[in-house]
Amino acid sequence: MNTFGQLFRITTFGESHGPGIGVIVDGCPAGLPVSQEQIQAALDRRRPGQSELTTPRSEADQVEIQSGIFRGETTGTPISLYIRNQDQHSHDYSHIEHAYRPSHADYTYDQKYGRRDFRGGGRSSARETAARVAAGAVAQQLLLREGMRASSYVSQVGAVQVPVGYEQLDLSLIDSNLVRCPHPETAEQMADLIRQVRDRHDTVGGLVTGVVRGVPAGLGEPVFDKLHSELGRAMLSINAVKGFEYGSGFSGVLLFGSEHNDEFYTDESGRVRTRTNHSGGIQGGISNGQDIYFRVAFKPVATILQPQATINDQGEAISLAGRGRHDPCVLPRAVPIVDAMTNLVLADMLLRARSNRV
Amino acid sequence: MNTFGQLFRITTFGESHGPGIGVIVDGCPAGLPVSQEQIQAALDRRRPGQSELTTPRSEADQVEIQSGIFRGETTGTPISLYIRNQDQHSHDYSHIEHAYRPSHADYTYDQKYGRRDFRGGGRSSARETAARVAAGAVAQQLLLREGMRASSYVSQVGAVQVPVGYEQLDLSLIDSNLVRCPHPETAEQMADLIRQVRDRHDTVGGLVTGVVRGVPAGLGEPVFDKLHSELGRAMLSINAVKGFEYGSGFSGVLLFGSEHNDEFYTDESGRVRTRTNHSGGIQGGISNGQDIYFRVAFKPVATILQPQATINDQGEAISLAGRGRHDPCVLPRAVPIVDAMTNLVLADMLLRARSNRV
Amino acid sequence: MNTFGQLFRITTFGESHGPGIGVIVDGCPAGLPVSQEQIQAALDRRRPGQSELTTPRSEADQVEIQSGIFRGETTGTPISLYIRNQDQHSHDYSHIEHAYRPSHADYTYDQKYGRRDFRGGGRSSARETAARVAAGAVAQQLLLREGMRASSYVSQVGAVQVPVGYEQLDLSLIDSNLVRCPHPETAEQMADLIRQVRDRHDTVGGLVTGVVRGVPAGLGEPVFDKLHSELGRAMLSINAVKGFEYGSGFSGVLLFGSEHNDEFYTDESGRVRTRTNHSGGIQGGISNGQDIYFRVAFKPVATILQPQATINDQGEAISLAGRGRHDPCVLPRAVPIVDAMTNLVLADMLLRARSNRV
Amino acid sequence: MNTFGQLFRITTFGESHGPGIGVIVDGCPAGLPVSQEQIQAALDRRRPGQSELTTPRSEADQVEIQSGIFRGETTGTPISLYIRNQDQHSHDYSHIEHAYRPSHADYTYDQKYGRRDFRGGGRSSARETAARVAAGAVAQQLLLREGMRASSYVSQVGAVQVPVGYEQLDLSLIDSNLVRCPHPETAEQMADLIRQVRDRHDTVGGLVTGVVRGVPAGLGEPVFDKLHSELGRAMLSINAVKGFEYGSGFSGVLLFGSEHNDEFYTDESGRVRTRTNHSGGIQGGISNGQDIYFRVAFKPVATILQPQATINDQGEAISLAGRGRHDPCVLPRAVPIVDAMTNLVLADMLLRARSNRV
Repeated sequence: MNTFGQLFRITTFGESHGPGIGVIVDGCPAGLPVSQEQIQAALDRRRPGQSELTTPRSEADQVEIQSGIFRGETTGTPISLYIRNQDQHSHDYSHIEHAYRPSHADYTYDQKYGRRDFRGGGRSSARETAARVAAGAVAQQLLLREGMRASSYVSQVGAVQVPVGYEQLDLSLIDSNLVRCPHPETAEQMADLIRQVRDRHDTVGGLVTGVVRGVPAGLGEPVFDKLHSELGRAMLSINAVKGFEYGSGFSGVLLFGSEHNDEFYTDESGRVRTRTNHSGGIQGGISNGQDIYFRVAFKPVATILQPQATINDQGEAISLAGRGRHDPCVLPRAVPIVDAMTNLVLADMLLRARSNRV
Repeated sequence: MNTFGQLFRITTFGESHGPGIGVIVDGCPAGLPVSQEQIQAALDRRRPGQSELTTPRSEADQVEIQSGIFRGETTGTPISLYIRNQDQHSHDYSHIEHAYRPSHADYTYDQKYGRRDFRGGGRSSARETAARVAAGAVAQQLLLREGMRASSYVSQVGAVQVPVGYEQLDLSLIDSNLVRCPHPETAEQMADLIRQVRDRHDTVGGLVTGVVRGVPAGLGEPVFDKLHSELGRAMLSINAVKGFEYGSGFSGVLLFGSEHNDEFYTDESGRVRTRTNHSGGIQGGISNGQDIYFRVAFKPVATILQPQATINDQGEAISLAGRGRHDPCVLPRAVPIVDAMTNLVLADMLLRARSNRV
Repeated sequence: MNTFGQLFRITTFGESHGPGIGVIVDGCPAGLPVSQEQIQAALDRRRPGQSELTTPRSEADQVEIQSGIFRGETTGTPISLYIRNQDQHSHDYSHIEHAYRPSHADYTYDQKYGRRDFRGGGRSSARETAARVAAGAVAQQLLLREGMRASSYVSQVGAVQVPVGYEQLDLSLIDSNLVRCPHPETAEQMADLIRQVRDRHDTVGGLVTGVVRGVPAGLGEPVFDKLHSELGRAMLSINAVKGFEYGSGFSGVLLFGSEHNDEFYTDESGRVRTRTNHSGGIQGGISNGQDIYFRVAFKPVATILQPQATINDQGEAISLAGRGRHDPCVLPRAVPIVDAMTNLVLADMLLRARSNRV
Repeated sequence: MNTFGQLFRITTFGESHGPGIGVIVDGCPAGLPVSQEQIQAALDRRRPGQSELTTPRSEADQVEIQSGIFRGETTGTPISLYIRNQDQHSHDYSHIEHAYRPSHADYTYDQKYGRRDFRGGGRSSARETAARVAAGAVAQQLLLREGMRASSYVSQVGAVQVPVGYEQLDLSLIDSNLVRCPHPETAEQMADLIRQVRDRHDTVGGLVTGVVRGVPAGLGEPVFDKLHSELGRAMLSINAVKGFEYGSGFSGVLLFGSEHNDEFYTDESGRVRTRTNHSGGIQGGISNGQDIYFRVAFKPVATILQPQATINDQGEAISLAGRGRHDPCVLPRAVPIVDAMTNLVLADMLLRARSNRV
């Protein structure tokens, strides 16, 4: 359904072209300073029209706090965040009212519910993720107090990939370019590729790498709510995501156990660490205090401005081309969404871990 | 926690070396024929000691039905399945009582709970998955009535991989060899590799490919409980899993939108289909009636019969070698676990979809 | 927390004097005709200022549908209903900023959360129930399709009680008077009592009797989610409720088993019925097809326009009198809230029962 | 379903005449000393055959701990408690296989699930509550550490009631007589009444009063999971319960607000208290630090050893009399069940309150 999280819990609502979208954040502890500006800043990283690499459709995505915050702090009651849709009536969607766009959710929503709000994809639109980003900004405030910081970045677009691991990057550079890739040379190549793809009316996918630093040992709730299974579920719930791996991930299958195991040692400061981190900071589903890192695969955007063969809701063959303004590549705007989902999972696990001991 | 599923819901319990392990299946509809033999057959595929490629430790894993089934059919009340541990007192685990095995959950359990049942890994042992397999056998009966069949197989061990896609394999051959790979030549190479690794006291990982046929359009509950995010979460909750991808997965990022999109058409029988299936049978988080397929990455088993550097619970450097009988490669025994989790997710989604329309 | 229901699930938000209050209805099946007018009609029964017997404070409580309904029907996606607060800035609440009103939630919110939005009671205000009434109107549409109708009425105010059982009343008269009591003579006495109490700046409590007709046998989910335990929980979550009983209730303890048991018989139409209905239409937590009936006790409103001894948040003794416009008796306005909670419980149970059999 | 609680969560299973019944306790914090003896002691208070006032059917109800406890303390993993049924094959239930006993769950289970395990009532038997009592004993250990103690007692049997409130009773006397009523003279009258009723093959109901002392301010999770709504739901889920009230309860409707309000004051030790406690220790759904008290109404047992008119599963009129050994009055054995549910609710709320503040 539309709720995520056990203790730090969000419920999102809204369609792409209805009056607006929003989220209820329930279970956020009282006494957390939260400002409209913090939430807006997160939304600004996701909003359409932010650069020449994303959709030229521009929406301000102005957030309104409707409840739960009093005198600048959370009160322990549900926080409602609302974003009005600005151009809800401006487009004509009659061309897709009865058509099933390839690799979209049109056909499956119709099969499931017997109907759909077809305007701009309705509920299946990635616009829903703006609500997640707003909620994630609240979760982030909670984590920052505990010294945890999630940073994600674009590590691959099409075949162009960052040649080094996250440990060798300066993550403060993520927002220094339009692609949100902290490896400047690669970022330029990625931008070039996105422009090429855009100009030939096509789209391209890529990878986002997520990194979380400062996570204390002990977060994650075995056996089913392991930290990485909740992270994976969270990422896979983002539109266009096709895969998730953490630590050594898929490439770990090429190592033998003797190579893959992370030896423990105690560093000079007396802190327990591992010499390698194939575990990705998570062992047995519980954080071990090392960096958490993972990768998320995004497929190329399904809406392309070229004619494609498909069918209508009568099963008849038709040709259909995307219209309007769309992202040639979602990766730059996916970064704040990955950050948000990471923050939401960690905030939930942080609260859940408070019950681990008497 | 230890519960999985919303409507078809399981709760597992038990430690590796306590009296036994088990599972409560709650929410299974009444009137489903379920036999002890069906559940036992599933457990027999997972049990240790089944072949020379797995751990030589042999346990019968005999299941007892404690409730919920009357005169051979489910009654709608909770089904309790229990498996007694046979060799609970036979081993000496004092060497790991105070040691943190590399890439195990010893350290993280201690950090989280302030203690752990160290015998055989306690709750973090993969023995817990036997309970899932028992529950999955019940879910499977529900799905078979609806024409759905989940089949998974070993598609890669170390660097040895099946050279063709699942569509070109005869999935009825999965159990025709010890590896559970339906491509006989590759299975032999895999078996050879496992034997070599075993003989040098090392371990090796690999991939399981899951396939589900006969799934009707309409299963999956956006936006957070998408079919693939629940599948991913389920797989990632299995011990040793490091990654999950469905459909085109990670390799989909190398395709452009114009290549990746799955065109719809109506076949001669009037059924809606897609010409390609990069979507992996799921669009917008909802099944579209095509085959569902996905891949799950398993790391090499962490327990190796070689000395490794690590620390004890005082933070002191020690050397530790695994003892006893362990799997050099979990993949053959992972297949029934992947099947079980697939069946559990689909059974839950099947029931949840009953509320989609008035 | 702020979510109620498993499959037909609501999440409410908002404070008495914030920008507004609202509710997300998640899990409502697609294809249900729902109009703004239906929801507004339910809200109008609850709104303040509707008669001389309730608070003279007048709010329009105009509902806005923000999502989930397209072309007049539900789409299966979350339905967001929002009610703007009209007079959010009009009052001065400084007198209670640091005071603990007797029998209010001021002290307990402060103890729990370390702070509270004191304006008009903030989240603890009964204003929150407007959101429930809006959601209940959606649930009601679902139930009416299935022939179920919940009706509740005021059966007691102070010591003035309806002298007959619900079976002897014409429930279509509930809204024929300001008290919402379908026994006209008693309604007049109740109204008189409320006026007297109001004029002496005091308050009075009473009982609401709930009746549901047309419920099919089979609703309710043992063992913990019995139909009556969910109804009881729902009613007890309403502000000012102190007790719940169903069927014979507390007076049933005075009967012997031989008197209390409800004999089954088959009526002339072949329908199974019971000769008495001490069971209140529920046996073993599951509806049996007879009328469901229950009673809900409301304490007198805690806000009285008289000085009372209490303390401030420094623990110092103070005297405090209520200010502004308050209900001398909540019972007339409680009726639509009881209806709403009844509808929400039944809608949830209706959907849950869809999974009872293969 | 069969799960209760959010963080301290139990799942029960088992039928009256299957192999056994049991419970999984999930979410219990690690490090809590728990012994088999503590659990057994709670079960002994509930077990049949404990006195001449209860059913002469005798079962040892021996509990086995199957998981979750290591070296005498909880480990944070699920605790499985199992009670084997001793006389599962000893009775003949063919007389009720096709009959619908009045005011039992036979008819409703059949209507809901299309079948039922009729032996001894199957899942609808109050035998299920033994599992709750076992789990409640674990919860109790957690609460005792925090200074909370739940005590309940029989306050009314038929028309015989304790003439004073709980404050005037010595609750250490509860187990000093067979009825579990701490007012010795009344206990004797109750015992006499129960014997009379038993001898004329009838049954009688009554009230249990629950008292909880030592609860800190701040427990309970508005708006839907108020402390009293969770208590009410818990009590109403117990077999034969028809009503729940807390604090002033139903009789509170006879007071005016000026009489009912509980004035706050600071006592000589600086502790905030109320002069009266009509609130029953709960305000706005949150504990306020005063005693919590409530009353639970139990109907007379439905099984009577007299012939009654009813129908069979073909709808045909039949006469049916109870057989075997049954309780003439459940009240004495209901006391440990009320205690258990109280402990379970409070343990859950205790853990949930850990997330209330940053």
